[in-house]
Amino acid sequence: MEIYEPTLVLHKQTCLQNIELMANKALRHNMKFRPHFKTHQSIEIARWFRNFDVKAITVSSVKMARYFASDGWNDITIAFPFNKYEVDSLNELLPTTTINIILDNYQVAEELDEKINSKVGVFIKISTGYFRSGINSGNKNRITKLVNTIVATKNLNFKGFLTHAGHTYNAGSKYEIRNIHFDSVKKMVELKNHFKEEYPNIEISVGDTPSCTVSEYFNDIDEIRPGNFVFYDLMQYKIGVCKLDNIAVRMFCPVVSRQKSRNEIVLYGGAIHFSKDWITNIDGKPMFGRILLNKGDHKELLDATNYISKLTQEHAIMRCTPSVFQQIEVGDILEVIPVHSCLTAHAMGRYISTKGEIIDMMPRF
Amino acid sequence: MEIYEPTLVLHKQTCLQNIELMANKALRHNMKFRPHFKTHQSIEIARWFRNFDVKAITVSSVKMARYFASDGWNDITIAFPFNKYEVDSLNELLPTTTINIILDNYQVAEELDEKINSKVGVFIKISTGYFRSGINSGNKNRITKLVNTIVATKNLNFKGFLTHAGHTYNAGSKYEIRNIHFDSVKKMVELKNHFKEEYPNIEISVGDTPSCTVSEYFNDIDEIRPGNFVFYDLMQYKIGVCKLDNIAVRMFCPVVSRQKSRNEIVLYGGAIHFSKDWITNIDGKPMFGRILLNKGDHKELLDATNYISKLTQEHAIMRCTPSVFQQIEVGDILEVIPVHSCLTAHAMGRYISTKGEIIDMMPRF
Repeated sequence: MEIYEPTLVLHKQTCLQNIELMANKALRHNMKFRPHFKTHQSIEIARWFRNFDVKAITVSSVKMARYFASDGWNDITIAFPFNKYEVDSLNELLPTTTINIILDNYQVAEELDEKINSKVGVFIKISTGYFRSGINSGNKNRITKLVNTIVATKNLNFKGFLTHAGHTYNAGSKYEIRNIHFDSVKKMVELKNHFKEEYPNIEISVGDTPSCTVSEYFNDIDEIRPGNFVFYDLMQYKIGVCKLDNIAVRMFCPVVSRQKSRNEIVLYGGAIHFSKDWITNIDGKPMFGRILLNKGDHKELLDATNYISKLTQEHAIMRCTPSVFQQIEVGDILEVIPVHSCLTAHAMGRYISTKGEIIDMMPRF
Repeated sequence: MEIYEPTLVLHKQTCLQNIELMANKALRHNMKFRPHFKTHQSIEIARWFRNFDVKAITVSSVKMARYFASDGWNDITIAFPFNKYEVDSLNELLPTTTINIILDNYQVAEELDEKINSKVGVFIKISTGYFRSGINSGNKNRITKLVNTIVATKNLNFKGFLTHAGHTYNAGSKYEIRNIHFDSVKKMVELKNHFKEEYPNIEISVGDTPSCTVSEYFNDIDEIRPGNFVFYDLMQYKIGVCKLDNIAVRMFCPVVSRQKSRNEIVLYGGAIHFSKDWITNIDGKPMFGRILLNKGDHKELLDATNYISKLTQEHAIMRCTPSVFQQIEVGDILEVIPVHSCLTAHAMGRYISTKGEIIDMMPRF
C-alpha cells in the first residue's frame, strides 16, 4: 500500500474479532445485540456484522438511518433526542423500516404524533448519571407523564427505556467502569420493574462500549448498543477497556519536518484528520495519539514519552526522546493510534484496508 | 431559510467587509496580499477576493492548490512543509501554475530537485517563536546551508523567507499580539538584510490573522498571508482581534432537550459539526461556542455565563442561567458563534448563505 498523505488504515481482522467477541457476549447473556453504527458509518463494515447474525442497529441521526436502510437494514434505533425538523425525512423511512426513536419530552411526543404518518417505536431516554440528555432515572413523575403521553398517542409505540452511561469514559479503571455500569443497570431494572406490570413487553437498552466490554453483569437487560468497540482507540485503552492490539484503526502520516532543538517531529496529519479529542498523558499533558515505528520486519510501539502533543489544522507535533528522535527522518511514514476513533473516522470520511482497498463511509451530503 | 439540522450560515456582507479591510491594509503598506484560503476552502468565496484585486493565494496542501488552480488561480504558495510523496501531484500543476513551496530541510530540497520537472519557487520556513515547523530565525548556519542548497539546484528558485507567528493565538491582548508581531518582523527583516546583498529580490512573507489585523507595523514586509480573518471567530474575539460583529459564520442548531435540574440545553450540533477547539471561558472552564437568541425582530447575544460547555459526537451542551433557561424551548433554533471557524468550516464541508443558497467547499476526495 502506498501512502501519499494522512491515511486512515483499517485492520479488518481486528475489527472482525471485536465484533465477534461482542456478539458472543450478547448471545451468552441472551440480549439483543443492536450495535451503534455511528462509529464506522460504513455500509461495507455494516455488512461484516451480518456474519454474526446482527439484524438490528443503532444510529445517531435520521440521515444515518436512511443511509443504512438503503442497504437493507430494516430495524433501526435512532439514538438521539428526536429533532422535530426531521419528521418528513423520518416519514419517508417508516413504511419500509422498523424505526425506534428516543424521547425525553412529552411536548415533542404530542407534536410528533400529529405529524407522523405511521407507527414508530419510542424508547424513553433515561439518564443514570451521565447527565447529557434524558430524564433522570429517579424522576418517576416526569417518566410516568411521558409514558402516559406516549401510550395515549395514535402512532407512538412505547417500547421501554434506553440509557447511555457515557460517564464510564471518565472512569479510571475497569473496576470503576463495572461500578458505574452496575449502578446504571440497577436504575434501569428498577424502572423496568416499576412499569412492567402495566407494560409486560417493556425493554431496557444500555449501550456504552466500556461497560459492554468489561462487565458481565447484564441481568434483565434486553439489549446492548455499543459502537466504539468495533475499532476501539486510545481513550478505551487508557481506561483499561481494550489492549492496544484490539485497536483496529491507525493513521499513517508522512514526516515533514524535524526539530532537533526541541526533539520534535512534525507530521502531516492534523485536526482535520484526527479531530481534536485528547487524553491526559503520563506527563500530565494532552496527548493526541501514540506512535508505531516501522522497523522493517516489525513495528515497534513507542512508549508514552513519545507522542502527539499538539494538533493544528494540518500538522501534528510529536514530542520525542532524543534517542527516538534520531531514528526518525523526514519522509518516514509513522503510524499513529488515534485517541477517539469515532471522531477520527468521521473526519477522514473513508478507510483504506491493509490491502489498499477503499472502504467508503456515509457521504456528507 | 429553513433549518433542519446543524447548518453553518455565512454572512457574505461581513465576509466582504473583512476582505476589504485586509486588502486595504496590504495596499496601504505596499505589501502583496496573498490570503490563506485554507479557512474557507471554497472556489465561490475565493471569487469574492477577485473584486479586491487579489491575484495570489496561499493554501495548505497540494490538493488544495489543485482545487483553486482549477478555477484559474495561477499564483499559489503551498504553506506546508513540502511532503515528498506529493511530488507527482505537484508536477501536474507546475506547467500551468506559478507555485511556491516551503522547505526547512536541505535533504528534501535535493531530493525534490531530482524529481521535479519544472521550476518551483521556494520560501525557507522560519520559526520566529511559534516553534512548530521551520528553522529557528537565529540559526544562521542552518539557514545559510539551506539557501546554498536551493540556489545550487536546477529547478528550485529561492524566493525568500516565510513565517507564521502562530504564537499570537496565545496572546492575552492586542498589545501582546503587537509585541509578538514586532519581534517576529524584526527577526525576518534581519534575515532579509543579511541575505539581500547576495539575493536582492529576496522577499519576506508573514501571515497570522491576529498580527495582520491589529498591527500597523509592516516595515520591509513584502507579503501577508492571513486566512482566518475572512470569517474570524470566538478565539480571535477573545484575544481582542475582532468584534463579535466581524464574525461571519454562525452554526444554527435545533434544541432537542432541556434539562431543568441542571439548567442545561441540549443542541443538535456536536464535535462532528464544530470540531473540538475551545477557549477558556470567564468561569475558567472550556467554552465551545457562544449563543445568540432569536427574539423575533432582533437577535440577542447571551453573555458568557450562557455557553456551549461540552461537545460530544452530535450533541452540544449549553450551560445557562435559570432565566435564560426559561426562554428556550425544545424545537427552538439557536445560533452558535464557533470558537475556531477554520475547523468548523472544514468539518461542515459547505456553507449556507443568509439567503439560503449553498456555497460549496473543496470536496473531500
